[in-house]
Amino acid sequence: MKLYGYYRSSTSYRLRIALNLKGLDYDIVPVNLLRSEQKEDQYRARNPFGGVPMLEVEGRDRAQSMAILEWLEDRFPAAPLLPEDAETRFTVRELTSAIATELHAPLNLKVLQYIKTQFEQDQNAVDAWYRHWLGLTLGPVEQRLAQLETGDFLLDRPGMFETVLIPQVYNARRFAYDLSQSPHIMRIEAACMQLPAFIAAHPDNQPDTPKEN
Amino acid sequence: MKLYGYYRSSTSYRLRIALNLKGLDYDIVPVNLLRSEQKEDQYRARNPFGGVPMLEVEGRDRAQSMAILEWLEDRFPAAPLLPEDAETRFTVRELTSAIATELHAPLNLKVLQYIKTQFEQDQNAVDAWYRHWLGLTLGPVEQRLAQLETGDFLLDRPGMFETVLIPQVYNARRFAYDLSQSPHIMRIEAACMQLPAFIAAHPDNQPDTPKEN
Repeated sequence: MKLYGYYRSSTSYRLRIALNLKGLDYDIVPVNLLRSEQKEDQYRARNPFGGVPMLEVEGRDRAQSMAILEWLEDRFPAAPLLPEDAETRFTVRELTSAIATELHAPLNLKVLQYIKTQFEQDQNAVDAWYRHWLGLTLGPVEQRLAQLETGDFLLDRPGMFETVLIPQVYNARRFAYDLSQSPHIMRIEAACMQLPAFIAAHPDNQPDTPKEN
Repeated sequence: MKLYGYYRSSTSYRLRIALNLKGLDYDIVPVNLLRSEQKEDQYRARNPFGGVPMLEVEGRDRAQSMAILEWLEDRFPAAPLLPEDAETRFTVRELTSAIATELHAPLNLKVLQYIKTQFEQDQNAVDAWYRHWLGLTLGPVEQRLAQLETGDFLLDRPGMFETVLIPQVYNARRFAYDLSQSPHIMRIEAACMQLPAFIAAHPDNQPDTPKEN
């Protein structure tokens, strides 16, 4: 397997965690988003969405991280990311979808660049935008976790929810989002960051992590 | 089942199509987004995300349309929205995720309101933003459909992809997006709009559709 990604892309980080949790081997091929390598013709011919991550596996170039997570679960059912029971699966998917559908897109690099260039907003305005959407999703996620009375993880061990949550918590810290009102999220983060699968996937530990980082 | 939604919300439209395709009975409870009814305390106590749709079924208030689609598929496997085979499931999910994760969020009413009020952009700028993101996702979706040499539907009959695509094509038409470069998408739209499940789900045919519409 070859994982085309960028060290700080939350969707690349998400796939690194999932592959590590499942114990699957993969090589990382860095794609530098700041140099727009994802827009080059050769890359777009393989991935028309022109983004990262892309997983090259079993003769197919696969785009869209949520679809890849589901495919990994279908194809490599050991070390499952989702529970068996439909009702508990819904619990996981509701929280996971909130982050993957509502939150991911407004925080995307492409979106931030559009706001800066087309709407002529400065970095302060971009930061406020970023924290606004973090709050609108992480707030309700925290409420649901409180209702569910979760412990170190949403269920008994990390799965699809933690895979998608942790990269956004990393973003939240980068953008100085106040996590003090999110004790359940912080407890899950602390528990995950003890585990080799999450440590190895962290943006600080990638082949394309800048040296000065 | 009670579906809390708004006639023109693409995620509500999405669930109406899925419930109709599966032949499930439901009552519609309109939630007026323009009057911010989704932000009222009584509603938020049930759905902390403060959005639509919400499906009340089997003693639980369920938020997040993508999670609900998956739950419907787990719980009511007849009239499947996804194929059996993992490889074909990936084909469906890759295109579905592109629309649900990349495209949905920047077109959301909340996001458009933020751009108008916080970034002081006029309707022309909002329309340009809207069409920009439509193009960045519908373009690659069209390319993938061409590569797959699809017919009237992505597979042999409408499923999760068409359920998620059709409401965004409705949005694309509202915002005067040029669909002429998307022949595969238009062919799928034409085929779907022949079917009772899609016609009954259309925003023009809802209990809360404004009379003057």
